[in-house]
Amino acid sequence: MKIHNFSAGPCILPQDVFQQASKAVLDFNGLSILEISHRSKDFVAVMEKAQSLALEHLGLINKGYKALFLGGGASMQFLMTAYNLLEKKAAYLNTGTWSDKAIKEAKAFGEVVEVGSSKEANYNYIPKDYQIPTDADYFHITSNNTIFGTQLKEIPQVNIPLVCDMSSDIFSRQLDFTQFDLIYAGAQKNMGPAGATLVVVKEDILGKVSRHIPSMLNYQTQISKDSMFNTPPVFPIYVSMLTLEWLKSNGGIDAIENINNKKASLIYSEIDRNDLFKGFAAVEDRSNMNATFSLNNDSHKELFDNLCKEANISGLNGHRSVGGYRASMYNALPLESVEVLVNVMKELENRA
Amino acid sequence: MKIHNFSAGPCILPQDVFQQASKAVLDFNGLSILEISHRSKDFVAVMEKAQSLALEHLGLINKGYKALFLGGGASMQFLMTAYNLLEKKAAYLNTGTWSDKAIKEAKAFGEVVEVGSSKEANYNYIPKDYQIPTDADYFHITSNNTIFGTQLKEIPQVNIPLVCDMSSDIFSRQLDFTQFDLIYAGAQKNMGPAGATLVVVKEDILGKVSRHIPSMLNYQTQISKDSMFNTPPVFPIYVSMLTLEWLKSNGGIDAIENINNKKASLIYSEIDRNDLFKGFAAVEDRSNMNATFSLNNDSHKELFDNLCKEANISGLNGHRSVGGYRASMYNALPLESVEVLVNVMKELENRA
Ligand SMILES: Cc1ncc(COP(=O)(O)O)c(C=O)c1O
Ligand SMILES: Cc1ncc(COP(=O)(O)O)c(C=O)c1O
Ligand SMILES: [Mg+2]
Ligand SMILES: [Mg+2]
Ligand SMILES: [Mg+2]
Ligand SMILES: [Mg+2]
Repeated sequence: MKIHNFSAGPCILPQDVFQQASKAVLDFNGLSILEISHRSKDFVAVMEKAQSLALEHLGLINKGYKALFLGGGASMQFLMTAYNLLEKKAAYLNTGTWSDKAIKEAKAFGEVVEVGSSKEANYNYIPKDYQIPTDADYFHITSNNTIFGTQLKEIPQVNIPLVCDMSSDIFSRQLDFTQFDLIYAGAQKNMGPAGATLVVVKEDILGKVSRHIPSMLNYQTQISKDSMFNTPPVFPIYVSMLTLEWLKSNGGIDAIENINNKKASLIYSEIDRNDLFKGFAAVEDRSNMNATFSLNNDSHKELFDNLCKEANISGLNGHRSVGGYRASMYNALPLESVEVLVNVMKELENRA
Repeated sequence: MKIHNFSAGPCILPQDVFQQASKAVLDFNGLSILEISHRSKDFVAVMEKAQSLALEHLGLINKGYKALFLGGGASMQFLMTAYNLLEKKAAYLNTGTWSDKAIKEAKAFGEVVEVGSSKEANYNYIPKDYQIPTDADYFHITSNNTIFGTQLKEIPQVNIPLVCDMSSDIFSRQLDFTQFDLIYAGAQKNMGPAGATLVVVKEDILGKVSRHIPSMLNYQTQISKDSMFNTPPVFPIYVSMLTLEWLKSNGGIDAIENINNKKASLIYSEIDRNDLFKGFAAVEDRSNMNATFSLNNDSHKELFDNLCKEANISGLNGHRSVGGYRASMYNALPLESVEVLVNVMKELENRA
């Protein structure tokens, strides 16, 4: 039975990756990947490969960036970015629950200027006209808002360091990644399983705050130890490496972006065409990763949910703060799964 | 080929656990364990089971304790314990590299009194005569010193909260665990793979410091969200749950302690009996988890290393700060592996 997994994260990964990961739990050069030392030659090679693949996909090799694989989740980066970068004042764009949490953490470290917010509209659009204070230490954005299904199509041009929470759309679309000074992303969407977080940081923005930074939270410490200041999350990093290899062997970001565009236009066309459904996010800000939508009439809910179930569609419930449905279409989700969903939407129309 | 894995951590886990974990990567109720939501019914059940098994093994159910599974490793707890508990002054016993790092992190938060230290003797013993300031906020100890092969046989009696880094001997021996107010342990020794950390905390010691604690580092936040404030390290927690189940079905701590005692006495008897070897740690402080020893004569090194290799012994090198050898004999290491090692030591004696 094939399940169409639209889960928002942790989420579907390539089937090949599951196969290799499962095998490595039993036998990875003679031992289980779960029982080898993180300082073993074999794991050091995994870590280096994961780091270099991440930089390679982003076009950031030899451009002054380091890639780190840390534990703690993207939420720990809400804290670490402020701890390491906020001396006096920082600017944040508030585009959703995750931006909002990042703002809350940062406030303990200095002045936080919320340059724009769509909170009043339950974050259904991306604010576009805003001023960024030129004396801010950095500007923080969330490139894709997982819960609300909005995505920054234009990356703002700024003269201060640009920090981006790219948790839910990293490696999904081509951008000029040199415009970012720090990118972070929890692994559990386009990169791997839960338990690892990627941080890509331009080294020259570090070392500028005067406060004491605890070792585990200090990017410079983590860089100097190559993400091995302490025991890293070995298996989540290994699976991330496998997923980054899969991406490379499938043509990299360019190729996957093409498929992601197809998946997104398929679902949004149906949401728009089909009178039973409406989209949640402003059309020009619609995310290619998470499509949020709902039924125009709640009386169709039971039938739609049943049809989804019969079609082996899983993980389609919207987040409680939006309601309705959310189809998360990360890199590893096949086009076919979106086709199945769209067919169910059409079938509902026929039957309703 | 069966490998005898004496690695200090990440380390050997039960073979049954590898089998179940490998299977779950392919199929865990229909989906891969790596692609299910951490908020799914199935994973919430895993988390709850892991937490209740941890408390049950320690005899701490219904005694005011909470069990948390967090990311970040035990080193993050060096920081979190101080952040959450250190208001003015804390007492630490310095018994090794890990205590020393815990002390360094704590110093940023208040006065740290190092009540005793064996640093001058490269931590080859546990200091025993020391005074603990009665006005300290807590006393921090490391129950087992992984690198040096020493273990606290007596847990000091104190009238202030007792905090213990039990990373390398948790679940290996019976103690009155109610004497501890906070226990933490990286999973990657007796509990699971790298990437998760267990914290068992008596709730009534929390909420007493005046500083702002960042959400991710705040035990009260983590408790209020049942370790799901953000996405937890799903797979490492799942494998920890499997390992805690394995421990239970094998008779719990009492039964495993019995075997651990046998393994330890086997290796230490041979170290003492065999004139080619000497132990590193003071005899009365010898760890049942990590036996540190060396050759009396370096000229035997090549032969010993070769014999170990032929016997499929892996992970026996000592930590660079001690040198020589270290046989880590965690719960999942079979007695048979120690027998194989002891036979190699005897064979060296015959051949040398
Ligand atoms: C955009 C974004 N940022 C941050 C987070 C929080 O990530 P974590 O759970 O790894 O802390 C999420 C989680 O879904 C997210 O989608
Ligand atoms: C006793 C002890 N404490 C702390 C640590 C650090 O653990 P982690 O690497 O998970 O931060 C270790 C690692 O081996 C250890 O043995
Ligand atoms: Mg969001
Ligand atoms: Mg419509
Ligand atoms: Mg030690
Ligand atoms: Mg001897």
